[in-house]
Amino acid sequence: LDDVLANLARVIETRKGADPASSYTARLLADGRDGILKKIGEEATELVIAAKGGAPAAIVHEAADLWYHTLVLLADCGLGPRDIARELEGRYGQSGLAEKAGRGP
Amino acid sequence: LDDVLANLARVIETRKGADPASSYTARLLADGRDGILKKIGEEATELVIAAKGGAPAAIVHEAADLWYHTLVLLADCGLGPRDIARELEGRYGQSGLAEKAGRGP
Amino acid sequence: LDDVLANLARVIETRKGADPASSYTARLLADGRDGILKKIGEEATELVIAAKGGAPAAIVHEAADLWYHTLVLLADCGLGPRDIARELEGRYGQSGLAEKAGRGP
Amino acid sequence: LDDVLANLARVIETRKGADPASSYTARLLADGRDGILKKIGEEATELVIAAKGGAPAAIVHEAADLWYHTLVLLADCGLGPRDIARELEGRYGQSGLAEKAGRGP
Repeated sequence: LDDVLANLARVIETRKGADPASSYTARLLADGRDGILKKIGEEATELVIAAKGGAPAAIVHEAADLWYHTLVLLADCGLGPRDIARELEGRYGQSGLAEKAGRGP
Repeated sequence: LDDVLANLARVIETRKGADPASSYTARLLADGRDGILKKIGEEATELVIAAKGGAPAAIVHEAADLWYHTLVLLADCGLGPRDIARELEGRYGQSGLAEKAGRGP
Repeated sequence: LDDVLANLARVIETRKGADPASSYTARLLADGRDGILKKIGEEATELVIAAKGGAPAAIVHEAADLWYHTLVLLADCGLGPRDIARELEGRYGQSGLAEKAGRGP
Repeated sequence: LDDVLANLARVIETRKGADPASSYTARLLADGRDGILKKIGEEATELVIAAKGGAPAAIVHEAADLWYHTLVLLADCGLGPRDIARELEGRYGQSGLAEKAGRGP
């Protein structure tokens, strides 16, 4: 998973400033922040609809779409999956898990 | 990120059937699918709001929340982060990236 | 407002079963429930983005889009704006307002 | 619906600057724009979930929640339901409907 998300984030970085006609990612990044945010909302809704439907393949498809667009947003913000990893580790990592087991996020 | 997400998914699995009072994750899983889906919608909206605000720490916080709740949803559906990795690799992995460079998701 | 929403709901009703090529509403209704729900999620996100941006015309535009798609959803469910009016009146109407002034929804 | 929405908008206006402890609406308005926007995202997601579930009473309940929170947002932006009515009438009103029958929003 590491390799997949980290590699994908690297590919997304290469799309910054690329010809919008060259790829979907380049087009998203060229369109700007609001367009990426609309996709976050869309994909989250599609994940909700898929999960109510129940077909595992559809759920995986929509969850992957949501994470992919999150990576594009992070790239657009000068951030990356390592920042998410660090945040999650701080909350739920070894000591974090012990400390916070009974607490909400 | 691999270890973080895989470890987190393992911890979430151990919360299935646990006393809802023992942790936030156990409570979410005990409440059921609709409650988890509401959180997906909420966290996606909070990510949009944070990204419009622009503070990197808030964006990382909300993206981590969104991914954590996606992991809880996957667990509730009998799925896991490996399924997302496989899907993304199929789409954007080595050969996938070459083939699909010019296409949308 | 009454006339506008009630008239719009009536027009939407006439689009049920109409040739999908004849109007956007006919196409939405022909595509089915999930397509309409995707639009609810999309328009809600666009309203959030517009409200963070702050331009009144954009906020009005997106709020109108959200309400229009809500009316299409209601029509698809065999419901209409009168049902929403009755619900809101029950909660916030004359006696409702007096009774519930201090309570949440 | 006119009277209901217009009256409700008037009541919401009176909650501006009121003691947050006095009502749910006063608390929402005191908390500020981002809190209202989170509710828009939440209620839209709850409407999607309810509509996938199919129970008419739940759909009406969530649609009413979504519209109520839209009215609170409009009030927070110095706007009101008349602005939405005017927008919808311009798009779908008598002449609008004739002109735009074949076009999307």
